[in-house]
Amino acid sequence: MQNIRYTNDVAAALGDALGADAARVVWIVDENSARHVLPALRCVAPDAPVVTLAAGDDHKTLEAARAVWDAMEAAGATRQSVAVNVGGGMVTDLGGFAAAAFKRGIRFVNVATTLLGAVDAAVGGKVGVNYHGLKNEIGFFAEASDVIISTRFFATLPDRELASGFAEMLKHGLLMGATAFDALLDVDLKAYDDEALLQQVRASVEYKLGVVRDDPREQGVRRALNLGHTVGHALEALALRQGAPVPHGYAVAWGLLAETVISHLTLQFSSELVYRLGHFVRDVYGVPAVTCDDYPALLELMRHDKKSRAGEINCTLLAACGDVRIDQTVNAEDVRAALDITRDLLGS
Amino acid sequence: MQNIRYTNDVAAALGDALGADAARVVWIVDENSARHVLPALRCVAPDAPVVTLAAGDDHKTLEAARAVWDAMEAAGATRQSVAVNVGGGMVTDLGGFAAAAFKRGIRFVNVATTLLGAVDAAVGGKVGVNYHGLKNEIGFFAEASDVIISTRFFATLPDRELASGFAEMLKHGLLMGATAFDALLDVDLKAYDDEALLQQVRASVEYKLGVVRDDPREQGVRRALNLGHTVGHALEALALRQGAPVPHGYAVAWGLLAETVISHLTLQFSSELVYRLGHFVRDVYGVPAVTCDDYPALLELMRHDKKSRAGEINCTLLAACGDVRIDQTVNAEDVRAALDITRDLLGS
Repeated sequence: MQNIRYTNDVAAALGDALGADAARVVWIVDENSARHVLPALRCVAPDAPVVTLAAGDDHKTLEAARAVWDAMEAAGATRQSVAVNVGGGMVTDLGGFAAAAFKRGIRFVNVATTLLGAVDAAVGGKVGVNYHGLKNEIGFFAEASDVIISTRFFATLPDRELASGFAEMLKHGLLMGATAFDALLDVDLKAYDDEALLQQVRASVEYKLGVVRDDPREQGVRRALNLGHTVGHALEALALRQGAPVPHGYAVAWGLLAETVISHLTLQFSSELVYRLGHFVRDVYGVPAVTCDDYPALLELMRHDKKSRAGEINCTLLAACGDVRIDQTVNAEDVRAALDITRDLLGS
Repeated sequence: MQNIRYTNDVAAALGDALGADAARVVWIVDENSARHVLPALRCVAPDAPVVTLAAGDDHKTLEAARAVWDAMEAAGATRQSVAVNVGGGMVTDLGGFAAAAFKRGIRFVNVATTLLGAVDAAVGGKVGVNYHGLKNEIGFFAEASDVIISTRFFATLPDRELASGFAEMLKHGLLMGATAFDALLDVDLKAYDDEALLQQVRASVEYKLGVVRDDPREQGVRRALNLGHTVGHALEALALRQGAPVPHGYAVAWGLLAETVISHLTLQFSSELVYRLGHFVRDVYGVPAVTCDDYPALLELMRHDKKSRAGEINCTLLAACGDVRIDQTVNAEDVRAALDITRDLLGS
């Protein structure tokens, strides 16, 4: 069972999680967390070796895992060593993979330093690397013994990074219910309160863990987590194809708006909430570069989404906040209408 | 839970284990099993791609795992594919590792084709590769859904290979009790009965699985499985150092004899059984190239064995067949005397 600690006193929590194992630490960081985060934590294990990875998902490779293993061996790591992964999803995915395969698995601890890492990658036990450009192609399930989640280091992130992670929280909020969702729409990402945001992150992580626990193999309720992703993936793929890639979280935010519009058209989801979400998304994420000429391409991408079957478009929809309907078939006219309304709400 | 099938009708058992998954097989073999075994099994999935590894523990590398992943991708393998590992421990360790890490883990089935693979590697869930010359340095725990154990292909093995695997069975026999051990000493490895040997292999595997289940982390009873290995490892290391390496199983067989002699000297283990084991070992494994000039080096190696502490020699010993005493400290005089007697019994 993972021990998840939500705290902004990260060094103390890490010291507590490690106990006597602090003497047997290997730090795994990337260039960013090495600069912005490690100095604040290093006191927990000042003499421990540091493995610094090149930042970015491009570097989440088997070669980087080998570099970790080589460094561990050079440092004399044993089966009693503990890897402390400090960073976003790239560091926790790769560091977890390297640790869980070293000598058939050593203990590892994740310190999530990005919002997306906190709400998505650091908990839940998926570890792995990309291979031949395929995301997470090589990997397995292995849980960090402890995960430390804080908002303290988010200020060191670029704005886009924070906004990207927040889209995942918006999704969880829509799935959790009106109270949680409302509170998220009140957050000002340019001037948030560390402790208040930490409690919202906590609620988001706990929600996701509950869903994953109820449906580990993604056969039912876990598909709720696909909310926003049918339209979102299509927008992301189109932008990539047009040579102007957008962050995944931005595409998800636009996708969430479009799919709440579809939910309004087909399941009477509240128009007031659609408007409020529209305002928030416009302010934080801006407008996707889409015209009605792009609709055929977007519809085609949605029909080929891995959730879809037999050329039909499949979405997770909402009858209300917290009232989820998975596996909904949506017709093309409703999608086109929703894209029109979404663009209108975003003022494009 | 692993489904272990003991049978010499291997193709039928494999077809039964795979069911509809037979349409989604990737065969993983080495040069030997490709030649001697695959033709008899291929009918189960005739159109499935075959990945052929170079034979030998030297090739149990991350590079070979990459070759498996590349072949799987080239063959269009999906998360629903099933790897069928056909071979000895090298193929099941590596094929299991590759399968369990491909797309976060696909189903895999082990068909053990060597005696050592059957009694040791194919069951129990250890998968991995060597790295920088360190055995199983990179790996984790992942169980084959099904393991098929047969004696049918042992005739295709060199005599040394069969004898090596049988040393592991002798060890289990000594630990299980007099009846099991007696029956093993009656086996003629040059003219054994397939079905009778299969039942003895079954008893050996079931015994080991019981021990592993009772003590998965090797904190107590599982150390019983170290019987024969304190002296055996020393003999193996000395032979390697002298430029005349011996198979691991041969060193274990000599080590088992020496440690039953120590058991006789210190715990009154039956001298009659020591004699009978001595005869068997002499006939099958011959004599180690050791003189009394080698004793200081052997004792030094035993003191540095990973089971030993503070320069003392630590062995698993027997008061009788099936009456195991783990963590026994043995003094150097008893070891020297036992080496003398062992050499005497082997006629060196």
